[in-house]
Amino acid sequence: MKKSFPLSKVYGLLETGPVALITTSRKGRPDVMTQSWHTMMEFEPPLVGCVIAAPSLSFDNLKATKECVINVPTRELAAKVVKCGSTSGRKVDKFQAFGLTAVPASRVAAPLIAECYASLECKLVDARMAGKYNFFVLEVIAAWVDSSRKDPRTLHHRGFGRFMVAGPSIKLPSKMK
Amino acid sequence: MKKSFPLSKVYGLLETGPVALITTSRKGRPDVMTQSWHTMMEFEPPLVGCVIAAPSLSFDNLKATKECVINVPTRELAAKVVKCGSTSGRKVDKFQAFGLTAVPASRVAAPLIAECYASLECKLVDARMAGKYNFFVLEVIAAWVDSSRKDPRTLHHRGFGRFMVAGPSIKLPSKMK
Repeated sequence: MKKSFPLSKVYGLLETGPVALITTSRKGRPDVMTQSWHTMMEFEPPLVGCVIAAPSLSFDNLKATKECVINVPTRELAAKVVKCGSTSGRKVDKFQAFGLTAVPASRVAAPLIAECYASLECKLVDARMAGKYNFFVLEVIAAWVDSSRKDPRTLHHRGFGRFMVAGPSIKLPSKMK
Repeated sequence: MKKSFPLSKVYGLLETGPVALITTSRKGRPDVMTQSWHTMMEFEPPLVGCVIAAPSLSFDNLKATKECVINVPTRELAAKVVKCGSTSGRKVDKFQAFGLTAVPASRVAAPLIAECYASLECKLVDARMAGKYNFFVLEVIAAWVDSSRKDPRTLHHRGFGRFMVAGPSIKLPSKMK
């Protein structure tokens, strides 16, 4: 079960580079895309930069609604992650086709994905680089995490359906935030 | 041993989100910083967006020289990664202090780190978002990888010295690049 998660800790979820399922919603119709090109840009409020390719429905939805949710799936969702990355929301209702459960978010119209380990509600704050690079700056305004999972087996894309699965954690004495 | 690596495959190295050691060099003096906030932005030529904080020597060096190298360390370098992330190059020669070997690059003045699994020579192509977000767009112009390591145990920062270590790879049928 996902619970509310402090915004100040969100960076620790994304800086490991997990593949994401990004949801948008427009005119009551939700969509989801698979995405690996994102980076933290600020700790708090958490800013996330991400590339969403221009011909996609997600690009159009994000530009129009200025909202999305970054969902973080784990190992058992790998086949659905690939399916969401290989089809267009213009042709398929991916939630229905691939058995993903859309749950209402608290502050945006785009849905959380129930099956995902973490879900980050975002609003678009800077689209200056959308034209040249398809690059958007998002602010995370609400976060939901299943904190009972200490070492979530997130997926990390290496290209052409090959993924590294998150291994164990190590802890070193560090002054780094 | 690292060998020349095709630029078209570089994205597969970075989209998993490994912690990076970014080197710069100015007036013959190399520096290195630890960095996790980066994302691919284009396949080919490979573009990488990354955040390099403003008060750092690396920020000054990158702005001045418009060059750097993104090096990807693995598990055995974890202690050095933390040390490089906890000190300033203004006070310490980190190569000497932490036992890292600077090797000349082919196309930039910043050095490759011999101990790292991969090294990507980069030139700065867009600093438009450096003022507001410390965000730089880099083009990878030469890449060196130890391709004998099939499942490199890269490090993925979770905050405060905690790292996820890359686990095994899985492969699914996929139309995704």
